[in-house]
Amino acid sequence: MLVNGIPGNSISIRDRGLLYGDGVFRTLRVAQGKALHWSLHYLKLQRDCAALGITCPDEVLLCAELDKVLAQHPDGVVKLIVTRGESGRGYTPSAAAEPTRIWDFSPLPDYPAECAMQGVKARVCSLRLSAQPRMACVKHLNRLENVLAAAELSDAQLHGEPAAEGLLLDADGHLIEGTRSNLFLVSQGRLVTPDLSRCGVAGIQRGRVMAWALQHGVTLHVRDVGLEEALQADELFIVNSVIGLWPICELEQRHWSHFPVAVQIRLGLERQDA
Amino acid sequence: MLVNGIPGNSISIRDRGLLYGDGVFRTLRVAQGKALHWSLHYLKLQRDCAALGITCPDEVLLCAELDKVLAQHPDGVVKLIVTRGESGRGYTPSAAAEPTRIWDFSPLPDYPAECAMQGVKARVCSLRLSAQPRMACVKHLNRLENVLAAAELSDAQLHGEPAAEGLLLDADGHLIEGTRSNLFLVSQGRLVTPDLSRCGVAGIQRGRVMAWALQHGVTLHVRDVGLEEALQADELFIVNSVIGLWPICELEQRHWSHFPVAVQIRLGLERQDA
Repeated sequence: MLVNGIPGNSISIRDRGLLYGDGVFRTLRVAQGKALHWSLHYLKLQRDCAALGITCPDEVLLCAELDKVLAQHPDGVVKLIVTRGESGRGYTPSAAAEPTRIWDFSPLPDYPAECAMQGVKARVCSLRLSAQPRMACVKHLNRLENVLAAAELSDAQLHGEPAAEGLLLDADGHLIEGTRSNLFLVSQGRLVTPDLSRCGVAGIQRGRVMAWALQHGVTLHVRDVGLEEALQADELFIVNSVIGLWPICELEQRHWSHFPVAVQIRLGLERQDA
Repeated sequence: MLVNGIPGNSISIRDRGLLYGDGVFRTLRVAQGKALHWSLHYLKLQRDCAALGITCPDEVLLCAELDKVLAQHPDGVVKLIVTRGESGRGYTPSAAAEPTRIWDFSPLPDYPAECAMQGVKARVCSLRLSAQPRMACVKHLNRLENVLAAAELSDAQLHGEPAAEGLLLDADGHLIEGTRSNLFLVSQGRLVTPDLSRCGVAGIQRGRVMAWALQHGVTLHVRDVGLEEALQADELFIVNSVIGLWPICELEQRHWSHFPVAVQIRLGLERQDA
């Protein structure tokens, strides 16, 4: 654990990351002492910082810090948080604030291999994502909606209805994403992923799937998607940097057992990881 | 500064307050070693914790901690943050998490007395508040909208257009609140304050003004308010626990210079403070 380059596991109670969720973060899969797709993560970090007007830390500095983390923890999950830094009382961001850089490590979660092979059960959360075009796509620290949605999943599990992921709609009933993943539909050989211009987080795995589709001549649409359309899709799958790609095998009483396109994309992405 | 009852000014980088903004806060005006309207603040804290499923710390415990803070800092502004506590990786709140209690102090801002007497200039922010009924009214730590709105004010000031407060509309054009205050209109002797069932923070000063209206037989409406209606009001004023009550003397080229109802309410509230 590093905070501003120094080993430590605490931050100031005046850090705006705590006070207002005034920051952004990245979740990196690290393997054999390397962070997968670091350059994509750094590009996303730059964009997210820019969206909030936070000065993005220099890449050379971050890479040096990442190397320190990787030296101790070569395999697992590394989280990087960049906050706007400390400030006096009040919401107004000070131009003088120095962004805070926080690195943390956790072991890779012990997901069964079947998740990727046979798919996972998903459910629709009752919480609706709010629309905020100014912060759409950005992976910022204001994540209470994800927390409340994840709590729904955990409640459902207690009631004997386990699901590996919860899907989130916006107030207009458009399907947006999972609580911790982006969503794709496969219909007649075409890929569709929800438009995220009003809400949702545009993760880097989503970008990688979109790039894969381009490279392989697969038609991809980014647009509004309703739940009904998803239930009628040939395949559904979710992606993030830790799980990789999981097909969905059950959603709202609908079942899927064959995921030829999802499998092809997963293998394609894994080949790039290697 | 106290963290979980112990003098300190840092928290764990694994605290969910930092990771997700998973917590709530209170801003208390303290004077002569007493926190004004503590019982209202504690009631609000309980409600806000309940809205997020956070176990609210016991009032006796908080009062003991507050007394420690007040012994060192009898006059000024005290902030209390309650987060869901630490957790492992992932959004799911753990039932085992122990809420974190954070106390911080700042001196009372040096506001000119004219703010309360002659009113302040306000402007309309371009950022629109997003609608999230599940978290409306709650003073949680997901405050990026307030940060971005405050940054607009600060930009306007740099361009020679200073304003003491920014007013926020929702996506439908309803006036909701200020960046750090609640808003009231006075029209023909009646009070109107925006409905906060979809967004906004229901502060305790707003509640006190509403109670004052009830006690004094003044008609009060809580409903949707458009900007046009506000511009045509006889008086506008904003409230929060630190500023108290400030009339608005200028908004969108409209000017006000007499605030008989606002002054009456301010004096009424100040009498209760004493």
